[in-house]
Amino acid sequence: MVTVDFRPIAKRVDVPSGTGLLDAARLAGVVVDTPCGGNGTCGKCVVRILEGEVDCESFGSLPEGMVAEGYVLACRSKVVRGPLAVLVPEAEGRLGGKLVEEDERYLVRHELLPKQWEFDPLAIKWLFHVPLARLEGDRSDLGRLRQAVQREWGPSPVHVPLGVLRHVAETLREAGGQVTLTIVRTGEALHVVRIEPGDHTTRHFGIAVDVGTTTVAVQLVNLTLGEVLSTRSDYNDQVECGLDVISRINYAQRPDRREELRRRVLATINRLIERVAKPHGVEPHEITNAVVSGNTTMTHLLLGLVPEYIRLAPYTPTVLEVPYVTAAELGVQINPDSWVCFSPCVGSYVGGDITAGLLCTDLVTDREEACLFIDIGTNGEIVVGNRDFLMTCACSAGPAFEGGGIACGMRAALGAIERVQVDPATGAPIVTAIGGVAPRGICGTGMMDLIANLFLAGWLDPAGRLERSRPSPSIRVDGKRAVYVLVPEERSGTGQALVVSEQDIENVLRAKAAIYSASSLMLEHVGLAPTDLATIYVAGGFGRFLDIETAIVLGLLPDVPRERFRFVGNASLTGSYMVCVSQEYRRRQLEVARRLTYLELSTEPNYMDQYTGALFLPHTDLARFPSVGARSLK
Amino acid sequence: MVTVDFRPIAKRVDVPSGTGLLDAARLAGVVVDTPCGGNGTCGKCVVRILEGEVDCESFGSLPEGMVAEGYVLACRSKVVRGPLAVLVPEAEGRLGGKLVEEDERYLVRHELLPKQWEFDPLAIKWLFHVPLARLEGDRSDLGRLRQAVQREWGPSPVHVPLGVLRHVAETLREAGGQVTLTIVRTGEALHVVRIEPGDHTTRHFGIAVDVGTTTVAVQLVNLTLGEVLSTRSDYNDQVECGLDVISRINYAQRPDRREELRRRVLATINRLIERVAKPHGVEPHEITNAVVSGNTTMTHLLLGLVPEYIRLAPYTPTVLEVPYVTAAELGVQINPDSWVCFSPCVGSYVGGDITAGLLCTDLVTDREEACLFIDIGTNGEIVVGNRDFLMTCACSAGPAFEGGGIACGMRAALGAIERVQVDPATGAPIVTAIGGVAPRGICGTGMMDLIANLFLAGWLDPAGRLERSRPSPSIRVDGKRAVYVLVPEERSGTGQALVVSEQDIENVLRAKAAIYSASSLMLEHVGLAPTDLATIYVAGGFGRFLDIETAIVLGLLPDVPRERFRFVGNASLTGSYMVCVSQEYRRRQLEVARRLTYLELSTEPNYMDQYTGALFLPHTDLARFPSVGARSLK
Repeated sequence: MVTVDFRPIAKRVDVPSGTGLLDAARLAGVVVDTPCGGNGTCGKCVVRILEGEVDCESFGSLPEGMVAEGYVLACRSKVVRGPLAVLVPEAEGRLGGKLVEEDERYLVRHELLPKQWEFDPLAIKWLFHVPLARLEGDRSDLGRLRQAVQREWGPSPVHVPLGVLRHVAETLREAGGQVTLTIVRTGEALHVVRIEPGDHTTRHFGIAVDVGTTTVAVQLVNLTLGEVLSTRSDYNDQVECGLDVISRINYAQRPDRREELRRRVLATINRLIERVAKPHGVEPHEITNAVVSGNTTMTHLLLGLVPEYIRLAPYTPTVLEVPYVTAAELGVQINPDSWVCFSPCVGSYVGGDITAGLLCTDLVTDREEACLFIDIGTNGEIVVGNRDFLMTCACSAGPAFEGGGIACGMRAALGAIERVQVDPATGAPIVTAIGGVAPRGICGTGMMDLIANLFLAGWLDPAGRLERSRPSPSIRVDGKRAVYVLVPEERSGTGQALVVSEQDIENVLRAKAAIYSASSLMLEHVGLAPTDLATIYVAGGFGRFLDIETAIVLGLLPDVPRERFRFVGNASLTGSYMVCVSQEYRRRQLEVARRLTYLELSTEPNYMDQYTGALFLPHTDLARFPSVGARSLK
Repeated sequence: MVTVDFRPIAKRVDVPSGTGLLDAARLAGVVVDTPCGGNGTCGKCVVRILEGEVDCESFGSLPEGMVAEGYVLACRSKVVRGPLAVLVPEAEGRLGGKLVEEDERYLVRHELLPKQWEFDPLAIKWLFHVPLARLEGDRSDLGRLRQAVQREWGPSPVHVPLGVLRHVAETLREAGGQVTLTIVRTGEALHVVRIEPGDHTTRHFGIAVDVGTTTVAVQLVNLTLGEVLSTRSDYNDQVECGLDVISRINYAQRPDRREELRRRVLATINRLIERVAKPHGVEPHEITNAVVSGNTTMTHLLLGLVPEYIRLAPYTPTVLEVPYVTAAELGVQINPDSWVCFSPCVGSYVGGDITAGLLCTDLVTDREEACLFIDIGTNGEIVVGNRDFLMTCACSAGPAFEGGGIACGMRAALGAIERVQVDPATGAPIVTAIGGVAPRGICGTGMMDLIANLFLAGWLDPAGRLERSRPSPSIRVDGKRAVYVLVPEERSGTGQALVVSEQDIENVLRAKAAIYSASSLMLEHVGLAPTDLATIYVAGGFGRFLDIETAIVLGLLPDVPRERFRFVGNASLTGSYMVCVSQEYRRRQLEVARRLTYLELSTEPNYMDQYTGALFLPHTDLARFPSVGARSLK
């Protein structure tokens, strides 16, 4: 028998050698997601072998770097020799009150990455021969270097910053005029960001950065091959200064606090850069390009710009398309002369995260059918369009989807209820908490699951009122108010009963109504019905825990055939990566940002009507949700 | 009677009220130069009234700033009330072992400055109205700012550095969209280097900088009117690390020493910036453009570039045309986003000081007659040309012209012999030392005067040998060697006799031969005789003490009609100023730098012959110096 120790949840099981790792996990009561049914195709069952030995039939599409670090597909691996220590990353990802580092399997959808022929990074490395003496023209080192670059890359101006210029003389002579230049092409000019003697074209790195209001993710990219070497994410250090963009903007009113916010997000990024680079033996100065995507407020705060006017009418940010800035100017700890390329913003509430995210969709292609893109978070951003038009709008959903604004709400962390089933007969809940511990609260997904299931079981009416006419052990009525007891005092991890009020439910309904009505209104604006949409892309870190059926029952997502939905995960990070490795995607992104028409919802006369209609479960207009009608009748 | 106290030489005289100041000076034995004969036109007799009162008929072309500081023309001023304290700046300039600050009257030739209609500074200040909201196009602050700039200045790319961008939002709103932008136009782009709320177009400053191997000069320019507010110069702090460019290059072989040299010259420049700006109440951030001219080595050292390959065949500097650099990148303490524009270099030994200096001459105009430009210093740089061609060469003259390489040589400082007359009958000298004190050595000008007068008096033969056949109390013969006693022990300020050897004389002859033969060879190259030259420009700090007759007797300058010579003083500084206030001069300078053909003397077969012929007084070929022949026969 071999002992298998699943970490970090500390469940243990003894199995015979030869047992499948997935079976061992199930025996131990450890949840390992297998959406593909254990066929080795979805890559979702990745675990990491910390000790002991397994036999792997295949690694599927796991990147080489991950395999080298001990990652395997649980469904393709057999226990060989123990004691075996297996890290189950999903549980790890949700552990503790703080998000721990995640791997690219959650953040990046490999199927979305640019194809081989599109691989053409913003920063390229090229071996040049610069003759040591030349009699014609500018005989200086810089003159000859420029000529060499222009011979290869055309007549654009060649910019050589002072930091690089200081190494030119020695480097040109160290290997007889053979030099490797790292060059960034901005359309306007060719920027030489690094010079090395001899041929160094095989070591070439960039980073993709998603700067979220809550979470920052950094990805190390091998720019020689385009592969992602490592992805790490962490809370944005700014979180302590306010949970949403408005509170950050308020915090930034004093110049010293604006500087504090800049330093905080910079510290987060730099910490993550070290975390992705160090294990791969990559030095900061070897990283010569960064692509950063963030919403408009995050973009301003990272640049040290005054964010105030983002939230004040007429809503004019300082920048939408960020000018050329270097890592040194910005304070990002990579090669100081590197270009830090920002994804362009569209308006105050549609930022670079969206123009990056759109790169993961057909909205940037010449597809004729219309598609919808929904990024669900504290703010919802929605884009609809096809090759002929693109329209976007944004709405404030509030923090309910992240467990905020709910009396017993919490983040998707250890002890958070993430699944709730409801007994149709009694209305009693069966809850599942993250980590299998005593529940300490309920996260956004849990709330959505609870509301949808209460509704389907007939214990919640379409207006979000709990059933009062039938007695339920879980519903307590106190005068006009009713509450739902999710976990009684004696089984709660906090020592207090976990109770959901109708107000809590309303907060979720408001959030879903904001997003649904915004997308619905925008569709009307362009004369489309949800069923006209070929694909609906759902983005957001949230996206990966979202159950599509639940979302439709809630009336958050439109009731269309399920195969039309695509979860694109952290599309902002994936989009940043795509820009980093592809000039073509950068071009598309700028084009899309300029093409996008912004629909200001606050001045739309129909928005309040749409919103009010959407406050119901799933909607006042049941015809919009035929499949939900069918289920709730059961 | 009024007592007039001339400072700092401390000579005093009592004159009746109404006496001309120039007459008072002459009575007191104080030398005040009056090349125009006291007509109030040359501006050379400037003195400063420290106490008391004078009556000024006119201030000639003295800048207002100087008049405000008490400067007057001695030839146009009458003594009114005493006691009168008068500062005589030339004496001040030569006092002490260290150059003291000089004023623009020595450094800048006002007649050379750009005309009114050429006034068009590199950095301009312009008042813009940027509408606060705009519905079309990029609605961001940056977008609207760019549009405003492009409406006025055309479709060039508008660059806004992060440092400026951080002030855009608040500044745009402070005065209802009225903003003053400081913009630098580089041809490639429009760079916004400063933004201010409201109309600030009347305060606008730049600096012109001459970075010499020995001396650095900085000039504060009012860019609203183009006037020079102040000029200060000081020794280059690098002097302690070597006296000439070759020793600096050697010193810079270690990276830490290269960095030391960079810091030293930067410290000099920054110190002088403070000295020019503070008295005028100009803050560093109000200075938004700098134009720097220096020889190729000085340019490299200030930029922190490796200078090594300047002196090694095939003599390829890292840069000739310096890319766009900001004050912050360079470390110059003016507005950090300012452009520091460098005068372009032509080759290893023809630098930005020359391309700046040429702006003071007709060589950059479309004049048909050929002109010659000679910059005399440790290195000599020579340019010949007209509107159709331009050729340049450089030679090493050695330090003899600055008193170096001479046993009792010294700089033109207190106690330095600067004039020597020779009694034709006895060969005995009559010496004049700076400051009227006991002589302590002889400076370059003194050596030239000595040699020319010994030769004219018949006590030195054309080969530089002292007369041995006739006895002279001043010539001591010791075997084969002879020396000339300039000052006997008992009258010397050092307690030791000041003696000039034939070796010392030979060093001066070598220096003059290097320069004469270089210019002569270059003239031959282009098929011109000295008499074909319409104008001969003589530049160099040295230039102002140089006596033209002496220089011709020596055979340093060609024997052509005297009115063809023009002394252009510190032409490098004047040229820097001209670029600072004129786009047109910048354009001409770049064009001239590219047009200049460099003649490499070391590979010229005739150079040694020419040089050897020029080692004689005035030359082996006496036909070249008819006027000298006539005088020496007397």
